[in-house]
Amino acid sequence: MTETLERLVAHHANTLDAAIDAVETRKNWSPFRDSPSSKFHDPGKPEAGKAAFEALLGKSFDLDQPGIVGWLGCEVSPFTRQPLGIIYPASDPEALIEAAQAAIPAWRKTASEARIALCLEMAERIYDRNFEMAHGVMHVAGQSYTQAFSGSGPNALDRGIEALAYAAKAMRDVSTSARWERTFGKEDVVLEKQYTLVPRGVGLVICCASFPTWNAYPAMFASLATGNPVIVKPHPIAILPMAIAVQECRRVLADFGCDPNLVTLAVDAIEAPIAQRFIAHPAVQIVDFTGSPRYGGHLESTVTGKLLFTETAGINSVVIESCVDLVETARAIARATCLFSAQMCTSPQNIYVPKNGIVTSSGHVPFEDVTLALVDAVNAIADNPAMAAGIMGAVQAEASCDIMWRLEQEAEVHPAAQVLRRPVPYIHPDFPGARTMTPLIVVLPAGNEELYAQEHFGPVMFIIVSENGNEAVDEVTRLVREHGAISSYLYSTDEDFIEGSLDSYAEVGANLSINLHGAMWANFAAAYSDYHVTGLNPAGNACLADLAFVANRFRIVQHRRPAARKGIACAA
Amino acid sequence: MTETLERLVAHHANTLDAAIDAVETRKNWSPFRDSPSSKFHDPGKPEAGKAAFEALLGKSFDLDQPGIVGWLGCEVSPFTRQPLGIIYPASDPEALIEAAQAAIPAWRKTASEARIALCLEMAERIYDRNFEMAHGVMHVAGQSYTQAFSGSGPNALDRGIEALAYAAKAMRDVSTSARWERTFGKEDVVLEKQYTLVPRGVGLVICCASFPTWNAYPAMFASLATGNPVIVKPHPIAILPMAIAVQECRRVLADFGCDPNLVTLAVDAIEAPIAQRFIAHPAVQIVDFTGSPRYGGHLESTVTGKLLFTETAGINSVVIESCVDLVETARAIARATCLFSAQMCTSPQNIYVPKNGIVTSSGHVPFEDVTLALVDAVNAIADNPAMAAGIMGAVQAEASCDIMWRLEQEAEVHPAAQVLRRPVPYIHPDFPGARTMTPLIVVLPAGNEELYAQEHFGPVMFIIVSENGNEAVDEVTRLVREHGAISSYLYSTDEDFIEGSLDSYAEVGANLSINLHGAMWANFAAAYSDYHVTGLNPAGNACLADLAFVANRFRIVQHRRPAARKGIACAA
Repeated sequence: MTETLERLVAHHANTLDAAIDAVETRKNWSPFRDSPSSKFHDPGKPEAGKAAFEALLGKSFDLDQPGIVGWLGCEVSPFTRQPLGIIYPASDPEALIEAAQAAIPAWRKTASEARIALCLEMAERIYDRNFEMAHGVMHVAGQSYTQAFSGSGPNALDRGIEALAYAAKAMRDVSTSARWERTFGKEDVVLEKQYTLVPRGVGLVICCASFPTWNAYPAMFASLATGNPVIVKPHPIAILPMAIAVQECRRVLADFGCDPNLVTLAVDAIEAPIAQRFIAHPAVQIVDFTGSPRYGGHLESTVTGKLLFTETAGINSVVIESCVDLVETARAIARATCLFSAQMCTSPQNIYVPKNGIVTSSGHVPFEDVTLALVDAVNAIADNPAMAAGIMGAVQAEASCDIMWRLEQEAEVHPAAQVLRRPVPYIHPDFPGARTMTPLIVVLPAGNEELYAQEHFGPVMFIIVSENGNEAVDEVTRLVREHGAISSYLYSTDEDFIEGSLDSYAEVGANLSINLHGAMWANFAAAYSDYHVTGLNPAGNACLADLAFVANRFRIVQHRRPAARKGIACAA
Repeated sequence: MTETLERLVAHHANTLDAAIDAVETRKNWSPFRDSPSSKFHDPGKPEAGKAAFEALLGKSFDLDQPGIVGWLGCEVSPFTRQPLGIIYPASDPEALIEAAQAAIPAWRKTASEARIALCLEMAERIYDRNFEMAHGVMHVAGQSYTQAFSGSGPNALDRGIEALAYAAKAMRDVSTSARWERTFGKEDVVLEKQYTLVPRGVGLVICCASFPTWNAYPAMFASLATGNPVIVKPHPIAILPMAIAVQECRRVLADFGCDPNLVTLAVDAIEAPIAQRFIAHPAVQIVDFTGSPRYGGHLESTVTGKLLFTETAGINSVVIESCVDLVETARAIARATCLFSAQMCTSPQNIYVPKNGIVTSSGHVPFEDVTLALVDAVNAIADNPAMAAGIMGAVQAEASCDIMWRLEQEAEVHPAAQVLRRPVPYIHPDFPGARTMTPLIVVLPAGNEELYAQEHFGPVMFIIVSENGNEAVDEVTRLVREHGAISSYLYSTDEDFIEGSLDSYAEVGANLSINLHGAMWANFAAAYSDYHVTGLNPAGNACLADLAFVANRFRIVQHRRPAARKGIACAA
């Protein structure tokens, strides 16, 4: 290891140690601040970040990659509805793969601890550009500024570091050498053995449009730390955040004498997708995918002979069996549904309420009053433009609005459904032209699965009339098994009911939040502590992150020889 | 955990601790004795084992499984060429899968430490029947008695325990609970989180014919320890060893109040294979395969949405660049090729010798003398029936003899090849009718890959004339990349040459033994110390065992809730 790299390893050692401690104890920890508040950041940083973002607009993005054959970019801000005008270098896939392959030999021999330190340095530098990144995420994905700052910034970087902690653990678990002694007959055999970590090959990281950085960092860092170069393929309508990240990773690599082509960006246009060209290439040995269940499912049923990690989507449900304070509970659910206009993998969609109502600390509440409380809680956000702007942000794609309008029409003519709240836009105080949408709320009896038994990507809340809590849990967990879920929610004051439900959720791989409300978003997922995605249902085949997310990204190759008298190589 | 299981965990705790220490230090260790010598075993044990084996002959095997629809068995001893006459219950695949699924809920809730202890108990009990097992392996696979006793006994069981050590490490890495505290705004949020290990589903273990137990134990124990039931599908011509193992596993499970259907046997006939029925079933989520590259490759290119672990085969090569003592080196290579008539996944087949000969401590040796030394070393074994019997054992399948005769004919008419030694049988001293075969030795120049660039399953040694050591390494590692290899061998006294070769081997995932000779077989693989198979070339996609072999066999599901005032469940 060079002295420079040794210093870098030392510089980041405490962070890595703390991250490893955090994933083992699952306690709260982060090296970053996830609030944009000026209390936590140097003066001028917010303004400088905004200026840096604005300086990118209308220009070609500075990324000196191999094999550039053109420039493209068609991002449109969901807030201004104006094109960002940024164009990115489009490289020939073959050239990116060749460059990545060429970088492998030296990267493989870079000590694993140095590779991890380089990734930590990348995380730190990306964090340093987080105000710029926040504007970037905001104007491609539609996230509110504060959410873009936290959720797509430190919260996502933390998940990358979480993956590094596991990579460190998995690689440290392999002894670098051993002395092996055994007597065979009358002969003492002494062997020295060396164990070498060998990467699999080129990693491809396919990012989604609404939350591009979230799963990208864990995938990138997991592959890089274990010796594999990565090619990052952002969604064609949300390139900028990953372009910034790739740019910074390449700078770090170059600064420390490593090949920047260990991290490259593969951009494409919606009408000419290129992911499959990478996936089909024999050099690409690892595929990390975040995106639609349709394409994710296609990969899951066609990719063989390579590692494939997917996070797609499912149907997230809330079961309200009973609760202490209905207003608080309804507020927690409304906030989770409203957050980023339900464009999150953890957004709840289906709310099950018993037909006879629920028990609360202030007595029995009939079904209708529960639905009213939910509608009121949504209105409290939707009718307050400043609050709506902070929570809902914008809707990334016109398609999501179309889905909501179509659903509203379907519900209007459905014999059993009733529209309780129409999906209308709110007027964003800063961006009056923003594409916004407040939740559609539909009430309907269980059994009408043609309406609610799929993920509708956008702000919709189905309030489903269930017989009782147990039947709701039965249906919810069946739907998880069939369609997947990332996050499930349960409200109950009946400990026996909760206890009796846990198994059903566990069996189908449904991560469950119970009785959450208050200041923390019910659908907040904490890196180092919350295992994100179980891999047990159709919402994804992997967990980001656990040991299994990293342990197979490298392999172990050994050589052994008689230990005695090196130089006179025949011994034993 | 029941008191009985607690005692079992305590009983095996030291073994597990020692196994974990062994996989971490990679040092030599085993809880077993792998020699049948009477020094190490209770008086009467060898005789009792033989009697137990003989008592099985000509009878129906005692295995009370679900869904028995018939009885079958067609095993023929390669030593006596007589049918064993044992018939095994053939169960309806659907019934085995249903029974396995029914066993999951209770097994999932059995503490992971108890599941591991139960597997250790199975290993101990199988070891206790090792004399019986040795005769069983001998008379279905053709292994010599001593090899069957060691290689298919303790050496294989050790690999199962090695997998248990990794399963313990991977599962212990997951905290069972956490207290998570963070301030959001002015609110202190305290959550308690529970993390539950959930198995994937039914595991299928497909065993090979020549070394049935070798990969079966690691696969079975890795799946069982992590909560998955296993269905063991032996090769139709080598059922008995796995029937004994399954019988013993089921007894252990029943003895400790667990469902014996966690381990079942799926037998089939060559003319009516059933593996695919299991593989296609959605409940089967894990497939461990050992066998032919043809079927293994088919699985690797068709199985999606399930975990697949394969070990198939490759072309194992020896490069002789130079050596200290040619007689010793030739002897080591001859022994490795002769062991079990080269029917092992680690058997060397292709021996590269520089055309100008090699340097030894006693001076330069021309090419022809190197080949002579190899032929002499093989003859020293083949011409001594007692030694041949102990080393070569029998040839399991007539097909292997056919391959050798066909190869001999091809070599005879090949313009560049020369047959140095004909593949003739040796007369086994105890079993004069045994199907035996001593190695065919063919010398030919590099480039004639139509003859040697594939695995010929049986005793053949190609001595390949290479330009020099470097060109030999280039060709060998290219063939590893294209066709796979489990074990590679290198002989050299030139440290620069060795050092310069290591990378080439590592890059293609070729585990390398350098300058091995003496009492230890050069192709001996030590559990806990030697990583078996790298997963980086076509000889298999997994390592048995490492963390990656176990870490994905279970998943993690969590639930979280406010920590304060349990019973008044709304907090924070």
